[in-house]
Amino acid sequence: MNNPENKPLMVLAGVGEGLGSALAARFVAGGYRVVGLSRSAREWALPGYFAMTCDLTKDAEVQATFEQIERQHGHPAVVIHIVGDLLISPFLELSADAFEGVWRSMVLSAMLVSQQAIARMLPAGHGALLFAGATASLRGGARFAAFASAKFALRGLAQSLAREFQSQGIHVAHVVLDGIIGVADGAELDPAALAESFWILAHQPRSTWTHELDLRPQLERF
Amino acid sequence: MNNPENKPLMVLAGVGEGLGSALAARFVAGGYRVVGLSRSAREWALPGYFAMTCDLTKDAEVQATFEQIERQHGHPAVVIHIVGDLLISPFLELSADAFEGVWRSMVLSAMLVSQQAIARMLPAGHGALLFAGATASLRGGARFAAFASAKFALRGLAQSLAREFQSQGIHVAHVVLDGIIGVADGAELDPAALAESFWILAHQPRSTWTHELDLRPQLERF
Amino acid sequence: MNNPENKPLMVLAGVGEGLGSALAARFVAGGYRVVGLSRSAREWALPGYFAMTCDLTKDAEVQATFEQIERQHGHPAVVIHIVGDLLISPFLELSADAFEGVWRSMVLSAMLVSQQAIARMLPAGHGALLFAGATASLRGGARFAAFASAKFALRGLAQSLAREFQSQGIHVAHVVLDGIIGVADGAELDPAALAESFWILAHQPRSTWTHELDLRPQLERF
Amino acid sequence: MNNPENKPLMVLAGVGEGLGSALAARFVAGGYRVVGLSRSAREWALPGYFAMTCDLTKDAEVQATFEQIERQHGHPAVVIHIVGDLLISPFLELSADAFEGVWRSMVLSAMLVSQQAIARMLPAGHGALLFAGATASLRGGARFAAFASAKFALRGLAQSLAREFQSQGIHVAHVVLDGIIGVADGAELDPAALAESFWILAHQPRSTWTHELDLRPQLERF
Repeated sequence: MNNPENKPLMVLAGVGEGLGSALAARFVAGGYRVVGLSRSAREWALPGYFAMTCDLTKDAEVQATFEQIERQHGHPAVVIHIVGDLLISPFLELSADAFEGVWRSMVLSAMLVSQQAIARMLPAGHGALLFAGATASLRGGARFAAFASAKFALRGLAQSLAREFQSQGIHVAHVVLDGIIGVADGAELDPAALAESFWILAHQPRSTWTHELDLRPQLERF
Repeated sequence: MNNPENKPLMVLAGVGEGLGSALAARFVAGGYRVVGLSRSAREWALPGYFAMTCDLTKDAEVQATFEQIERQHGHPAVVIHIVGDLLISPFLELSADAFEGVWRSMVLSAMLVSQQAIARMLPAGHGALLFAGATASLRGGARFAAFASAKFALRGLAQSLAREFQSQGIHVAHVVLDGIIGVADGAELDPAALAESFWILAHQPRSTWTHELDLRPQLERF
Repeated sequence: MNNPENKPLMVLAGVGEGLGSALAARFVAGGYRVVGLSRSAREWALPGYFAMTCDLTKDAEVQATFEQIERQHGHPAVVIHIVGDLLISPFLELSADAFEGVWRSMVLSAMLVSQQAIARMLPAGHGALLFAGATASLRGGARFAAFASAKFALRGLAQSLAREFQSQGIHVAHVVLDGIIGVADGAELDPAALAESFWILAHQPRSTWTHELDLRPQLERF
Repeated sequence: MNNPENKPLMVLAGVGEGLGSALAARFVAGGYRVVGLSRSAREWALPGYFAMTCDLTKDAEVQATFEQIERQHGHPAVVIHIVGDLLISPFLELSADAFEGVWRSMVLSAMLVSQQAIARMLPAGHGALLFAGATASLRGGARFAAFASAKFALRGLAQSLAREFQSQGIHVAHVVLDGIIGVADGAELDPAALAESFWILAHQPRSTWTHELDLRPQLERF
């Protein structure tokens, strides 16, 4: 194992957004190694961050990737799934493939990543598994049939995992991002501030675990 | 068109349960023709009921089936989706295929059927599209990762369709079945009583549309 | 007892709205006697309807009124609470008295009426207790601090009563009226159609009890 | 003004619980002055903590208290309302006074404190107003009619205040405490860990405000 300092490991499923790099930076700053998984792994000039290519919708590939992660970096202490695949479309113009694609990228990937994460966290008796939801996790909307359906599904998955695994030490949390990720001006969600919230969630003591919280900019109507 | 009496048409997606035959009987009794879709169409001795074979997870097949329905029976006035695919499993023993299968049978089928239904209801300016949910539509549970995730997804779909199409005359409703379908003894959901509730929903006047209601036996804890 | 025909009794707490008279008319048409309670009892030319004066926020008065109802008409089979007291106000201009007044008229009255209703229904082993909620039962809003707080409180009361008494035969339901009560044109809630929904709820068989449903006009955004 | 160091001020409404002293300690440690309000003000050996006697259900008294606080300590930056008044009782044994008392102590007090807090925060253009909810804020229960009704009411108040005042810089948050406050062993909510969560909420940057989160011990079923 290539982790001589024995740093804890965070695995980030779905890099490539502003939130992804902010999360990587926050956990590296906090003393973690971070492995980022995405279809097109991009290396950042961030010591302690490792990019890996992985199609998160393929069972065998996700499994092989986590095995490789384990050999190279050890067990994950924190796994964060932030795959977003916003599709807004009039329902009658939505193809079955597009509808399915949104589900595969956001929900099937979460299920596959969760299995690998939980199977590796259970022997250690602890771990944190965090999911990024959206306004559409709680409320459907016109032209949001694909996105809301998938975000609802992710929330149902997260709740089920929390209820199945929290007594075994796995903290599962679902974060409702209610707003546009952008700059820190009160009207948009600041990636660094979001990352700080995920960091806090991942380190809550076991006497006060949050399963769900919302995060929105001050000026967002809700 | 083979509907000389010009009866309104109800299409039932997902027959084969106690609820399915009760719904068919209720709508036939109410003066409807009923077409029931399922993988293994079974004819019942119910005049006015027509069974059709259809894999509801295949886009082309669903489309062809609705085209055939239209030629033979006309536009659907009511479409009810009651596909249940209860899978309870420890999460770590759940295969990706099983997880996906539950979603395909319960959610993708609902999306495909909804597209065909809505496209045919819009020109008429009215129609009712009803979905059967479950306790797990509102709340995940240990070993319910697949089922709850899919039922949440169905609810997000139903909400989105209601918000996209109700102003155009399509009534979309989601019924939370909180209990076991069985006999009418206060401890289980009576299929005939359930069917009556769907009947009522399908015929609410447009000044009082319900989007969601729960139905549970008296003795069910909730 | 002055009920020679042995008709079932419905008690309506909070008359005086379009919904009140529609409910009275619907239940009278369905073979009920109806007693309407309000601060200023107004008689309607509706045979079978009896108006009684009652300040629903006074414990002793509510109790005495139900005792008198019992002597004159027997046990209530159905009790419906529809007291509305819409107060919209900038929060900083809201007086403590106004805030409390909204709670007293909508929530304390519901608690007092529920006690009298349930105590009289339990010996019979059945009864229906229905409450009218609003959009603000589910979601607070700017300038709705008093109204939303009270409507939330009513919902919490209704849920608690359902969970305490349904196994003893009392059906408790909460109806979310999402819209303006007015005319039956698709943009407003038609009182007669609303009354029909309450009628249906009050007569659901015990194998399929609804605890909560929403009702909104077709053109209401939600 | 008796605050020469110009420390920010936290006002704590409803002291006397484990959570109260933990919150006072956390904010004092963080550089705040803390004023604790309760009916029987108890001084703690905590430099920077000031106890004041106040019946939080009396409008004039709450107002006078906040005026005195302002003279002595300045504007509040953070106000936290944690009044708990757990009443579990068979509904038919609940007196109207007891039902009302729970509402007065938990909801009316919150309304009165919020008015004083917000009126003093608005000129500064910022402030945080935090409320402690419970499991019963989200879900009624048998014998919880009084408590759940009041906790629902508090939640409706908090949502309304958030929607009315967040655009003016006031962060309003509602914390669902799902468990028993006790020791930090995974089965109970640790007061110090709870206090840390309130601290974090009170200091979220305005690009990521949480309105609601739950906190439960690892071993709590939910």
